[in-house]
Amino acid sequence: MFEPPVQRLIDELARLPGIGRKSAQRLAFYLLNTEEVDAERLANAILDMRRQVSLCERCFNVAAGAECTVCLDTRRDPSVVCVVERAQDIVVMEKTQEFGGRYHVLGGSISPISGIGPDQLHFRELLARIDEEGIKEVIAATNPTVEGDATALYIARVLKPLGVKVTRLASGLPVGGDLDYADELTLGRALVGRQEL
Amino acid sequence: MFEPPVQRLIDELARLPGIGRKSAQRLAFYLLNTEEVDAERLANAILDMRRQVSLCERCFNVAAGAECTVCLDTRRDPSVVCVVERAQDIVVMEKTQEFGGRYHVLGGSISPISGIGPDQLHFRELLARIDEEGIKEVIAATNPTVEGDATALYIARVLKPLGVKVTRLASGLPVGGDLDYADELTLGRALVGRQEL
Repeated sequence: MFEPPVQRLIDELARLPGIGRKSAQRLAFYLLNTEEVDAERLANAILDMRRQVSLCERCFNVAAGAECTVCLDTRRDPSVVCVVERAQDIVVMEKTQEFGGRYHVLGGSISPISGIGPDQLHFRELLARIDEEGIKEVIAATNPTVEGDATALYIARVLKPLGVKVTRLASGLPVGGDLDYADELTLGRALVGRQEL
Repeated sequence: MFEPPVQRLIDELARLPGIGRKSAQRLAFYLLNTEEVDAERLANAILDMRRQVSLCERCFNVAAGAECTVCLDTRRDPSVVCVVERAQDIVVMEKTQEFGGRYHVLGGSISPISGIGPDQLHFRELLARIDEEGIKEVIAATNPTVEGDATALYIARVLKPLGVKVTRLASGLPVGGDLDYADELTLGRALVGRQEL
């Protein structure tokens, strides 16, 4: 129904996660009616990102060169590694300003239903780093989901025999939350993980 | 917090209508992790559309050349023109397969609050077409909103003295709808616009 170049753009936009046909159509017409420089700036931002950004050779974080800024930072403690599912999780961890070690991005979590096992993730690379970098502690910062928990348990099972301390982010009540609104699983974990004052 | 090329892409995506910071971030990381050809295809679809598509010189519909496919179609009746707010409305009208005339895209509706009067829309061009193309009927297919209604009334006020018949799309109950769920305004209009069987 649309002119072919418009239809092609709608099709491409509709491939993006969380964007349906109707949103894709609205976005395509927005890009058609906006200033040409604005549309070009978006297209070039996509191309530039793919040209200039790659994955860190060591930890699979987003990097402008061979290694990411975290791995290149000599002030950081290489003996503690925080394992996350996705590169964007590193930004959230960094915002806490509570972590001074390095990272390792798995690229997902173990999910037999989706056919994702350790071999589909960057596990081998994590194992190789243990010796190479003298890693003493691995923090399993995978998501507090069934898959994330399974992944954390797998990390512990594989790394503990190598003498690496494996820890998991605490589950519990969110700061500023209300007991009344906590689900029973979260509350149960907060109880199990209670700490002495 | 992100590498500059990633941050720039997030900023550009967040400018799009209906896309917030969080969605922009998710989309940027999707484009980072997807196959490079997929990301490039999206960027090129944007650039191609802006290069290959422009607005029809006559009716401001989307066009691959100087005039759109509707205006170029000699089988269509040039004496009836359907006036719509936006180019994408033409696609919806065409899907009905009930209209055999031409179109005119205003580029919006009259909205004094937003500072949009007839001069900000393609009204002058519509007026010029009346004589040039021998237009006998103008269908005001603007949206059934306050602004759309005001625009339709304005069209009628300007074109009727020129001897042009001005009609408005009927307002009423949606086909397959339920009286129970109709709002009073729509039901009121359906009553006023009742037709003899």
